[in-house]
Amino acid sequence: MIVGAGPAGMSAAVNARVRNKSVALVSRRFTSPSLARAPAIHNYLGVEGVSGSELYKRFLEHARRSEAQLIESDVIGIYDMGGYFSALASAGDISARAVVIATGAVQSASIPGESTLVGSGVSYCATCDGPLYRGKRVVVLGYTAAAREEANFLAEICSEVTYVDLQRGKMGDGPSLADSIRVVTGKVLSIRGETIATHVQLEEESIPADGVFVIRESIPIERLLDGLTIADGAIAVDREMATSVPGVFAAGDCTGRPWQVAKAVGEGLAAGLSAARHVDRLAAAARIV
Amino acid sequence: MIVGAGPAGMSAAVNARVRNKSVALVSRRFTSPSLARAPAIHNYLGVEGVSGSELYKRFLEHARRSEAQLIESDVIGIYDMGGYFSALASAGDISARAVVIATGAVQSASIPGESTLVGSGVSYCATCDGPLYRGKRVVVLGYTAAAREEANFLAEICSEVTYVDLQRGKMGDGPSLADSIRVVTGKVLSIRGETIATHVQLEEESIPADGVFVIRESIPIERLLDGLTIADGAIAVDREMATSVPGVFAAGDCTGRPWQVAKAVGEGLAAGLSAARHVDRLAAAARIV
Repeated sequence: MIVGAGPAGMSAAVNARVRNKSVALVSRRFTSPSLARAPAIHNYLGVEGVSGSELYKRFLEHARRSEAQLIESDVIGIYDMGGYFSALASAGDISARAVVIATGAVQSASIPGESTLVGSGVSYCATCDGPLYRGKRVVVLGYTAAAREEANFLAEICSEVTYVDLQRGKMGDGPSLADSIRVVTGKVLSIRGETIATHVQLEEESIPADGVFVIRESIPIERLLDGLTIADGAIAVDREMATSVPGVFAAGDCTGRPWQVAKAVGEGLAAGLSAARHVDRLAAAARIV
Repeated sequence: MIVGAGPAGMSAAVNARVRNKSVALVSRRFTSPSLARAPAIHNYLGVEGVSGSELYKRFLEHARRSEAQLIESDVIGIYDMGGYFSALASAGDISARAVVIATGAVQSASIPGESTLVGSGVSYCATCDGPLYRGKRVVVLGYTAAAREEANFLAEICSEVTYVDLQRGKMGDGPSLADSIRVVTGKVLSIRGETIATHVQLEEESIPADGVFVIRESIPIERLLDGLTIADGAIAVDREMATSVPGVFAAGDCTGRPWQVAKAVGEGLAAGLSAARHVDRLAAAARIV
């Protein structure tokens, strides 16, 4: 299972397929906002001056032709089941013997109170945790189309939904918010609460909340999988792209700078081959037993 | 200065040029025998099913257009001059503030006696050391066109030249050996000598020699530059592709497996950017002084 369909994830998919492994390439989306912003890329060797979107298109075609299974889905959490991993995903559970994390630059839990209150009123997934707040007051902190979708879903089941626009007004494409949702654009100072979240503190007001949903581009990496060592704001990896969790590899921007296509593609290759080798070793060990 | 014009060296060149550095890309040749042997490459993301030679051609065009200076030359040794490096090259001395080594898979000094007698009768460069053996007996151990060129040059100035063909008869393209050169195809067991090389020991005979020239695809990496840490048959590097010698970076097959284009290109990018950063820091330090 490869999480994230940027250049690193797709390179990992292509290379694990070269080693004849079944590959699920799971991603919230199969587009790349950061590549789409690049009018021309000049430093991916052998491919000169193409636009970021054209390059992404070629990458995606390559991944498709490799016959990796492309799954459009959020991944909320990955759990080590002893010998295999299970991912809680919006498209359903996904199991795999090895995992490559290629989720892009690490976004840490950055709002004061967020990391201490997660699981105690702070959530990263309305689909998963929304039903806990049926008939209650929730606040959604977000800036993406996905965040607005989550807020709209919550508006159907909660008594009161406040949407705090973290981009302060730059709404972009995607659905608009339901009429019943109150929209706020102040700066978020903290999520407050002693043992459980009770308020979202803005500069101008304090919003009482039974649940707080923080919906960013990706969930904080340290919440995705227990035991991942993070160093200097990136997933720590060795030269084989192995993380601190055996069987879990990482590649691309999430392992640190430089945030460049060629670096991501090269690391994706190494991570894909390492993951394939891990699967082979598990199979060999099973035969010996 | 980048040594070696495979995918890693060319990616380093393109990326150091992106950072506006003057780049000398120095290589014995601007072709890739290993890529030339690949009928099709399927796992370099975004470029599917092209032949190895076609891919190399695209890489070379990219490097040329980046306006790196391409220098066809052997590099015999690199010396740390304190603040810059000087390379002893067959095309003349080359100076640079940072070095990227991208010489391909590490070839170690593998003939018994070779590493202890280097500089004491054992040499890796006829152009450099040939004149020391004017009128004397030399043995050339080799298998490449370059080795035959070196032998022919030595035949002009030495009294006796024996060429031991390490590939045992597979001569390939390139110049033939001069008529005055004796050709031998036995297996080399050792280079003998107490403090100085005196004989090349084959299975069938022992050839007396004042000088022994070992001419492989590349010189043993530990002879190229003092202080380079080698681990598991590869140059040890950190995540920024820095070697044990400050200011010297490495990328591609010489840093270890997987020996794959995408890995080499990705590491080349990182090494090229790290080398550029090193040059910037030297400049900043000079301004402060």
